[in-house]
Amino acid sequence: MKKLIVGQSGGPTSVINASLAGVYYEAKKKGFKVYGMLNGIEGLLQEQIIDLDEYFEDKNNLELLKRTPSSFLGTCRFKLGSIKEHEETYEKVFDILDKHAIDSFIYIGGNDSMDTVESLSDYAKDNKKKQNFIGVPKTIDNDLPITDHCPGFGSACKYIATTLREIIQDNNCYGNTKPTIAIVEIMGRHAGWLTSAASLAKDESSMGVDAIYLPEIPFNIDTFVEETKELLKKKSSIVIALSEGIKTEDDQFICELTDSNLLVDSFGHKELAGCADILSKILKEKLNVKTRAITLSTLQRAAAHLASKTDLDEAYHCGMKGADLAAKNESGKMVYMKRISNNPYKIKYEVFDDIHKIANIEKKIPLEWIDVDNNYVKEELVDYLKPLIQGEVKQIYKDGIPQHINLKK
Amino acid sequence: MKKLIVGQSGGPTSVINASLAGVYYEAKKKGFKVYGMLNGIEGLLQEQIIDLDEYFEDKNNLELLKRTPSSFLGTCRFKLGSIKEHEETYEKVFDILDKHAIDSFIYIGGNDSMDTVESLSDYAKDNKKKQNFIGVPKTIDNDLPITDHCPGFGSACKYIATTLREIIQDNNCYGNTKPTIAIVEIMGRHAGWLTSAASLAKDESSMGVDAIYLPEIPFNIDTFVEETKELLKKKSSIVIALSEGIKTEDDQFICELTDSNLLVDSFGHKELAGCADILSKILKEKLNVKTRAITLSTLQRAAAHLASKTDLDEAYHCGMKGADLAAKNESGKMVYMKRISNNPYKIKYEVFDDIHKIANIEKKIPLEWIDVDNNYVKEELVDYLKPLIQGEVKQIYKDGIPQHINLKK
Repeated sequence: MKKLIVGQSGGPTSVINASLAGVYYEAKKKGFKVYGMLNGIEGLLQEQIIDLDEYFEDKNNLELLKRTPSSFLGTCRFKLGSIKEHEETYEKVFDILDKHAIDSFIYIGGNDSMDTVESLSDYAKDNKKKQNFIGVPKTIDNDLPITDHCPGFGSACKYIATTLREIIQDNNCYGNTKPTIAIVEIMGRHAGWLTSAASLAKDESSMGVDAIYLPEIPFNIDTFVEETKELLKKKSSIVIALSEGIKTEDDQFICELTDSNLLVDSFGHKELAGCADILSKILKEKLNVKTRAITLSTLQRAAAHLASKTDLDEAYHCGMKGADLAAKNESGKMVYMKRISNNPYKIKYEVFDDIHKIANIEKKIPLEWIDVDNNYVKEELVDYLKPLIQGEVKQIYKDGIPQHINLKK
Repeated sequence: MKKLIVGQSGGPTSVINASLAGVYYEAKKKGFKVYGMLNGIEGLLQEQIIDLDEYFEDKNNLELLKRTPSSFLGTCRFKLGSIKEHEETYEKVFDILDKHAIDSFIYIGGNDSMDTVESLSDYAKDNKKKQNFIGVPKTIDNDLPITDHCPGFGSACKYIATTLREIIQDNNCYGNTKPTIAIVEIMGRHAGWLTSAASLAKDESSMGVDAIYLPEIPFNIDTFVEETKELLKKKSSIVIALSEGIKTEDDQFICELTDSNLLVDSFGHKELAGCADILSKILKEKLNVKTRAITLSTLQRAAAHLASKTDLDEAYHCGMKGADLAAKNESGKMVYMKRISNNPYKIKYEVFDDIHKIANIEKKIPLEWIDVDNNYVKEELVDYLKPLIQGEVKQIYKDGIPQHINLKK
């Protein structure tokens, strides 16, 4: 019996486990014995390997898995590095894979994880190893190139749009009696995709947000204050969506403008926090109005109770496609989605085989989709986003709360 | 035809509009013409009155209303003050009520609103006015005495429990590879009811939060650091729930320990913000671990998409009961809920007629329901909370987002 091992890497999403479920389901169908590595490549290096049949031969558990946010197997931010400089680590990985007679390796992750997949595949080819390596994309940030969009993104958009609509309702309750500004900070280090989903809050039932500030467009605090002052002339309840990654013309993050706690994560990314807080304080001072900073934080990537059915199904299918490629002994390839049409919405699952190319590219919003003059997004971007949040996932409730599945202790 | 006017006051909840729907439905049934005052008593004083038939003769709109968070009619924090000192204002209110030939006045709100109801009722009795005044309770804080619990509280609890379970999943994703602490700040100025709902996240499918800090128990930062250090010895993913209102033995709010922006709202309440931020920074520094502060902010009072069906139905029935009392020409009374049994959960809708008594009392968690030694709550409190989050409200989705209803422009 052929053996497949699957791992998850990078930041969690609401549907990364749906991809795991898809891998498991399809791999079993293709005759694989399926293992999971705990905490990605980091756990694999410590031989932390589990038999997934113990959990998912029970189909009810597979349904729970699809609805469980964050990485069931655990994740890591371990960077394998180049083969040249880290040959020993590569050898160790393959020793473990050989020891457990693994044939196929599927990694569900973002940019960095795809780099890992390609490097392992390269090493296998150069060293005549039998294993093949497949990447299944995920990221709430939607910044992976090639794929039309990423599993995980649609559910985060649905959460952001729904939550913003509720924040707008809340903020609006004082009517014209008391000007109130809510500034909502949304994730997205360099790309504004997630923040742009704020545009989806608007329709005939909701007035939507009043401004959207994206990291793709340089941010100026004085202009921001002036623009907000103008908004206040027209209405007294203002809700502004902005990206954690907004920065000035000189490329300085707004959240770095105070001596806030700057930290660097293990990939050298700066830890961002607090631009809503900073701007909220500035507006309060300059415009003398009630302001409130709201940071959606990890809720936007973990709110499985609001998962998009479209997104969850796509995540599942990407996983299935990954297992299918593994069965065909493809290697160094990533599953991706190609949009065939918008209305009706239709995508195709495709295969990309030059992953190194994409590993370090961050896909940003095309500038022509941004309405710079009005601090908003253009209709094209709304049309792109809208299909991704369609459909609701029936949750499995017990005692009033959605159920999840977790590793046995 | 008798005429009834209804208003909403104080902070919004997810189901305050369900009470409005209940008032409208029952008042119509009882033969009233039903009006709404915009922004509570503040709008009434400006004769901002709308005909609710224009919206709710269409039954679909009434269903949308039940599912729309925050106050449909708008709210205010206007305090009427004593009759002695503000006789002119009282006269103006009654002039407007007389002018519009209003017979009954229903106010949906918290402590302060109930005070308004009783004062207006007193004035009417003393001045031989025909109007009667009824209060319908609401508050996410659950700090109103007399009533077993308050409409709005259960939905906030359901949101907090669900969200915490998702935060726990997210926080847990690094397994044992990287100690991570999430500190989640929950609303509740002086009473820990909302924060105690964090206990509901725990069951066989989730390990629950690791500690709950309530404002009922004095908070000590050094002890907190030590207790968290102890937790880290046992597990690497720690999620702590704490109330925005935690304070030291000397009655100093934790959020005031830095020179943070202290503001006072129009009732003299201090604006609280940031104790999760402060404590997160302290833990990071003292324990050298990754920490994250998450503030649930207005989401916990506006997340109608996660409304508890039990709570929504109760809010609706409280509204109906209010209209029923109005029809019976009762005055100066508040609807409340009495718990008859827990298993099966059963409540009765009752009437309280000494509202002044309750207006300035904040109901706190009984100390015997708090597990001080373990920074947790006792089973009695969980038993009290659990029935309130049962059942889900079928949302009316359009294009992937729950729909609301708002005032025409």
